[in-house]
Amino acid sequence: MLKQINGGVCAAKGFTANGVHCGIRKNKTKRDLALIYTATPATAAAVYTQNLVKGAPLTVTKNNIADGKAHAVICNSGNANTCNANGIEIAQQTCALVAQALNVEAKDIVVASTGVIGQPLDITPIANGIPTLVAGLGAHSDLACEGIMTTDTKPKEIAFEFTVGGKTCHIGGIAKGSGMIHPNMATMLVFVTTDCAISAEMLQKALSADVKNSFNMISIDGDTSTNDMLSILANGEAGNAEIVSEGADYDMFCAALNAVTTDLCRKIAADGEGATKLLECKVSGAKDEQAAKTVAKSVICSSLFKSAMFGADANWGRVLCAIGYAGADVDVNKVGVSFRSAKGTVLVCENGAGVPFSEELAKEVLLENEIEVLITLGDGMACATAWGCDLTYDYVKINGDYRT
Amino acid sequence: MLKQINGGVCAAKGFTANGVHCGIRKNKTKRDLALIYTATPATAAAVYTQNLVKGAPLTVTKNNIADGKAHAVICNSGNANTCNANGIEIAQQTCALVAQALNVEAKDIVVASTGVIGQPLDITPIANGIPTLVAGLGAHSDLACEGIMTTDTKPKEIAFEFTVGGKTCHIGGIAKGSGMIHPNMATMLVFVTTDCAISAEMLQKALSADVKNSFNMISIDGDTSTNDMLSILANGEAGNAEIVSEGADYDMFCAALNAVTTDLCRKIAADGEGATKLLECKVSGAKDEQAAKTVAKSVICSSLFKSAMFGADANWGRVLCAIGYAGADVDVNKVGVSFRSAKGTVLVCENGAGVPFSEELAKEVLLENEIEVLITLGDGMACATAWGCDLTYDYVKINGDYRT
Repeated sequence: MLKQINGGVCAAKGFTANGVHCGIRKNKTKRDLALIYTATPATAAAVYTQNLVKGAPLTVTKNNIADGKAHAVICNSGNANTCNANGIEIAQQTCALVAQALNVEAKDIVVASTGVIGQPLDITPIANGIPTLVAGLGAHSDLACEGIMTTDTKPKEIAFEFTVGGKTCHIGGIAKGSGMIHPNMATMLVFVTTDCAISAEMLQKALSADVKNSFNMISIDGDTSTNDMLSILANGEAGNAEIVSEGADYDMFCAALNAVTTDLCRKIAADGEGATKLLECKVSGAKDEQAAKTVAKSVICSSLFKSAMFGADANWGRVLCAIGYAGADVDVNKVGVSFRSAKGTVLVCENGAGVPFSEELAKEVLLENEIEVLITLGDGMACATAWGCDLTYDYVKINGDYRT
Repeated sequence: MLKQINGGVCAAKGFTANGVHCGIRKNKTKRDLALIYTATPATAAAVYTQNLVKGAPLTVTKNNIADGKAHAVICNSGNANTCNANGIEIAQQTCALVAQALNVEAKDIVVASTGVIGQPLDITPIANGIPTLVAGLGAHSDLACEGIMTTDTKPKEIAFEFTVGGKTCHIGGIAKGSGMIHPNMATMLVFVTTDCAISAEMLQKALSADVKNSFNMISIDGDTSTNDMLSILANGEAGNAEIVSEGADYDMFCAALNAVTTDLCRKIAADGEGATKLLECKVSGAKDEQAAKTVAKSVICSSLFKSAMFGADANWGRVLCAIGYAGADVDVNKVGVSFRSAKGTVLVCENGAGVPFSEELAKEVLLENEIEVLITLGDGMACATAWGCDLTYDYVKINGDYRT
């Protein structure tokens, strides 16, 4: 039993958070430094971008949590600290400053950055901001969430309550998304906290399995960022017997984790740069899961399909086209396609060919801001879901002049 | 020695062409049916889309030129004749009607279609248009070129003169591009004619080798069309000794073919849907050709990079990012990046990190409408070039409401 609750990353017992403006960004109304902290040491796990160009903070984090332990997450926005000669040094200094203020060890800090690539990151504003950041720690998941936003228009946080071994546990997360989102083994920046007791090994296993069906199935623009990172801290304050192997407790934890990640996936996709619609592509009847995923992601990534959805145009030929070039083994003569939203469902293609449908109803269905594209392959029993958004004028506007 | 000449697909001796409005499109000022013809039978070769969803005309053409012979190319725009239950039948009827009017065999016709997917194609306007189309055959490469255009804003034609075995030969082509352009083993629609005598086998060999460095290196939007086709007819009227094996003559022919295809590639990329700029990504110093191609194409396909170019923003971090996720084996710490145009060259990144540069000069360079992105990998001697265009408001506008 999962119950949605408030509190984001502070829903789990023992976790506090904060977000401040420290001066990395020029706009003083925009928070640019976020902190999540647990006094009880937490087991930690993370997954990172597969981009060969990796942000310096990822290298430092990977090293810091090699022992499966962490006390805090520090993250700045406004600068990715990537492709900078002194990037590692700056990330390490950041950890040292936070650790000192929290009275923990520097190697127990998860550090992350997001923003422009290739501009040196000055440690001064971070150093100046940390005292206020630490002093203000509390149930401020919302402020931490604001601190990690870049072109996001909405904060993204979620939390659930669940039960393991008779103990009430909590899990919550915050995320930033928007652009350069086409995660591979991880996503932009997502921080999850839980008070469930779980070993570092099982935590990493749960996280690595989860991203394959959650963040790796989103695409905003086909660009895999250099700074993608999803990390989770579990401080065990719920008091359940530690999860150290597979079984019912592990399955419950994975379900709770998936509830958090799926919610954040949908929020990231819906708030893609310039997006007006959340697109959810559900593929069923695939011969295997990989085929289902490949097809779902190909459709969600098609610029032509995304543009058609912006225009509420039931141009299903573009769905067929994207299925055809996906690279999966599909019998195109068995493919069926429907569009579905709160306004109803419209079947537009059966057996790989068009069927008559009401253009009026299709328009009404596609004018909604959450659209499902249902694809049946008729090849087997496997299914997959991918999330994306429409391609709009504003995507171009945002990215045509992001840096200056 | 290659000399650029006029005449497009009619530059080669014995080839005539025409284009008319037959009524597939509602707009009467838009030609929608094109014909290319040679009375002297030609050897024929073609390459087709790798999309599993294939336009019916491709299946019919493949069958028709299995014997390596053809007399004519018929192509309509306004309807792709793809994902239609009676598609094959319509394509065959089209061939039969043209063949009858030209007094040749139906199996000697190359047939192609471009336009909306999944809307039944009525044979009536085609049947009505063919008599006028045939009656008006002449040195009208320009009219044929208009007849195959969809969202193209400019006709794309080119021709060259060259010498094989002391005989003057000619080769010319027309192309349509614009959207759904991310060719894989072939491109949208390109028709090339030559009067050079060359066997069907060597013609296919030359064509298949050429596309790997020409059309397969363009991307407008990452979408591989269902109807991509590049075909070539060689009628031998130049009177050279037929090219039947590799050697100097074959090499000369390949060079002439490449001059035509490269020119058409640049024209297709420059006229991508909504494009304001031609982007040319030149990668050098790769460990092998595949790595060079993978990197060049990854950069040219990045929505973020394309948007930055639209905004004339020297955001080189996005180039590094796209190199990093390309999937090629690259040492990112050796990468160098420069932007070049008619206004000059700006080095922005060396050894994977930024270098100081003049933002003013960079802006001036990037405001031009032909931009080169020069990438050095420092790993070896291989190089590759890919072509694309910027991502603009107009791409979204064109594709948000293409069908209705």
